[in-house]
Amino acid sequence: RAPGPFDPEHGHEQVVYCHDRASGLRAIIAIHSTALGPALGGTRFYPYPTEEDALADVLRLSRGMTYKCALAGLDHGGGKAVIIGDPATDKSEALLRAYGRFVESLGGRYVTACDVGTYVGDMDVIHRETGHVVGRSEVHGGSGDSSVLTAFGVFTAMRACAAHVWGSDSLRDRTVGVAGVGKVGHLLVGHLLDAGAQVVVTDVSTRAVERVRSEHPEVDVVAGPDALVGSALDVYAPCALGGALDRATVDALSAKIVCGAANNQLADDGAGHLAERLLERGITYAPDYLVNAGGVIQVTDEQEGFDMARARHRVEGLFATTEAVLARAAEQGISPARAADHLAEERIAAIGGRFPYLRR
Amino acid sequence: RAPGPFDPEHGHEQVVYCHDRASGLRAIIAIHSTALGPALGGTRFYPYPTEEDALADVLRLSRGMTYKCALAGLDHGGGKAVIIGDPATDKSEALLRAYGRFVESLGGRYVTACDVGTYVGDMDVIHRETGHVVGRSEVHGGSGDSSVLTAFGVFTAMRACAAHVWGSDSLRDRTVGVAGVGKVGHLLVGHLLDAGAQVVVTDVSTRAVERVRSEHPEVDVVAGPDALVGSALDVYAPCALGGALDRATVDALSAKIVCGAANNQLADDGAGHLAERLLERGITYAPDYLVNAGGVIQVTDEQEGFDMARARHRVEGLFATTEAVLARAAEQGISPARAADHLAEERIAAIGGRFPYLRR
Repeated sequence: RAPGPFDPEHGHEQVVYCHDRASGLRAIIAIHSTALGPALGGTRFYPYPTEEDALADVLRLSRGMTYKCALAGLDHGGGKAVIIGDPATDKSEALLRAYGRFVESLGGRYVTACDVGTYVGDMDVIHRETGHVVGRSEVHGGSGDSSVLTAFGVFTAMRACAAHVWGSDSLRDRTVGVAGVGKVGHLLVGHLLDAGAQVVVTDVSTRAVERVRSEHPEVDVVAGPDALVGSALDVYAPCALGGALDRATVDALSAKIVCGAANNQLADDGAGHLAERLLERGITYAPDYLVNAGGVIQVTDEQEGFDMARARHRVEGLFATTEAVLARAAEQGISPARAADHLAEERIAAIGGRFPYLRR
Repeated sequence: RAPGPFDPEHGHEQVVYCHDRASGLRAIIAIHSTALGPALGGTRFYPYPTEEDALADVLRLSRGMTYKCALAGLDHGGGKAVIIGDPATDKSEALLRAYGRFVESLGGRYVTACDVGTYVGDMDVIHRETGHVVGRSEVHGGSGDSSVLTAFGVFTAMRACAAHVWGSDSLRDRTVGVAGVGKVGHLLVGHLLDAGAQVVVTDVSTRAVERVRSEHPEVDVVAGPDALVGSALDVYAPCALGGALDRATVDALSAKIVCGAANNQLADDGAGHLAERLLERGITYAPDYLVNAGGVIQVTDEQEGFDMARARHRVEGLFATTEAVLARAAEQGISPARAADHLAEERIAAIGGRFPYLRR
């Protein structure tokens, strides 16, 4: 059975169906929790085959945002929105503005941002109807490309992993395999080289590989993820699409650390078996939603008037959080993924509000 | 198949699922349309067996409110809310306040009021969390018992029916049967007697009948609705629960006018056959949702600081609206129920906003 908005397993606070006949907008905004503050999460624009698929996706993603925001130390709960349609053909100013009015109508309980199918320019349009949108362009008070601090956050968390595993946060002379050198992976390579690491990369896009090679000729390139995973690595950094780790990958991995920007690295394994297998093999897995939180930290800073130095300082906090997650995991003999969930839940319980959040 | 929130047949603008784990609140707020302004509609507190039942009810009722508000000339769209639970056991200050916060979170796009299972005192509690609630008690700036102008509105519409049928709006010496002499019916009897009408009443509650008799000894009493319908009447005024008119009732009726406060007088006949049958029999049926709009006119006046003279003046407008509905019906040979729907739709099309309403 497909989950409904009141499904007790999910425990959402508010699910909002939005419809504007004139522009054809059909959107679902899911607010999982506002215990820590306004729910934050991007707007995904996607041609879901059914309304049920759209609901299932937005319920799942918004719940993940509650954990991500809590662990990143933000004063934000978890939310997400989906617009049902093909962004290539259905996106229009009227539709985005109608959507912006629905975001505005929630009075700040939900703050939106970019996600699959929506871009900085779309957030600028939405911003014409509501202040509750981040990920805007720099000329509109936005923080620009959020890959910048996403990559820096992955690098920061990776140093914390190194400190946990090897007793020093230095990555000098460590070999790091970066799978996917798009916007985030490419910037991560720069941080790693600056830190004295050896870097091996792969990407399905030869153009992306060429760009990295032209900027950083010292980088090694291998043919694909299997070749990368099979080579001698100290750290593996999945930075491409989700589901980076499966059983075969985990078994083949020589790296002691997995720390990358990709979402849902263990996605196809809800039961936690992959996390357990990583544990058994002595591989330290830094939970993806912790490690890639630099992006949300960057965009939420816009709400105070974006300041890169302050946002970067906040992202540096991922070092301590990663340390805390790994220490808790080691102490209790549980996977870092579970330890991260526990820490997020503890923060919500300790400082979360009693009532649904309202901006006053 | 049960309708979903995006059901094209209903065409709702926004459907909001609200959940507060701590108080146990589960509510659905349906905003059918804000073309004319903030959606208005009461909060029904009812132990729906399933979530689907609750959704179906709130979708149906909120759509009706769009027509009611439009026809009553209000700057309001149609909305409704349901709280799933037993008001006798599940209602609490915490639950009502959590609910009030969700109403507040919609930033004024939805204005709530009393409905089945909620009372003036509940609105006062909700008012502690949001200004977007009417039907409050007089000490809290409310308009008190909305039966007052509901009854006056029915009386006003009945005079317009008389003018249409008999060429004079006088009810002097007309015989009016009032089925149901609770809060509204009882006040209607007073207006009718003041206007020189003969009044015959019935009610399942002997206490209600006794109250009317003690105040107005000149009123006749009959045993039940069948006896009332079967007696010689000029006007029949159903003022008890819904579904007052069925085929047998319509066939037995001697009255030339049906005009009463009850909701859904033709409820069990979605196909319009009863409305057609009334037409065939030459009975002028004043649509219930038009005739009983005095109550919403009264409570919405609270938003400007309640003033009984102004509210009463607005309710007097139901005379002209009833005239317009009956004239349109006669002109086009359609039932007044259909004519009323058309007039409501025309007003929305003519002056309704293009975008979802936002309070600025």
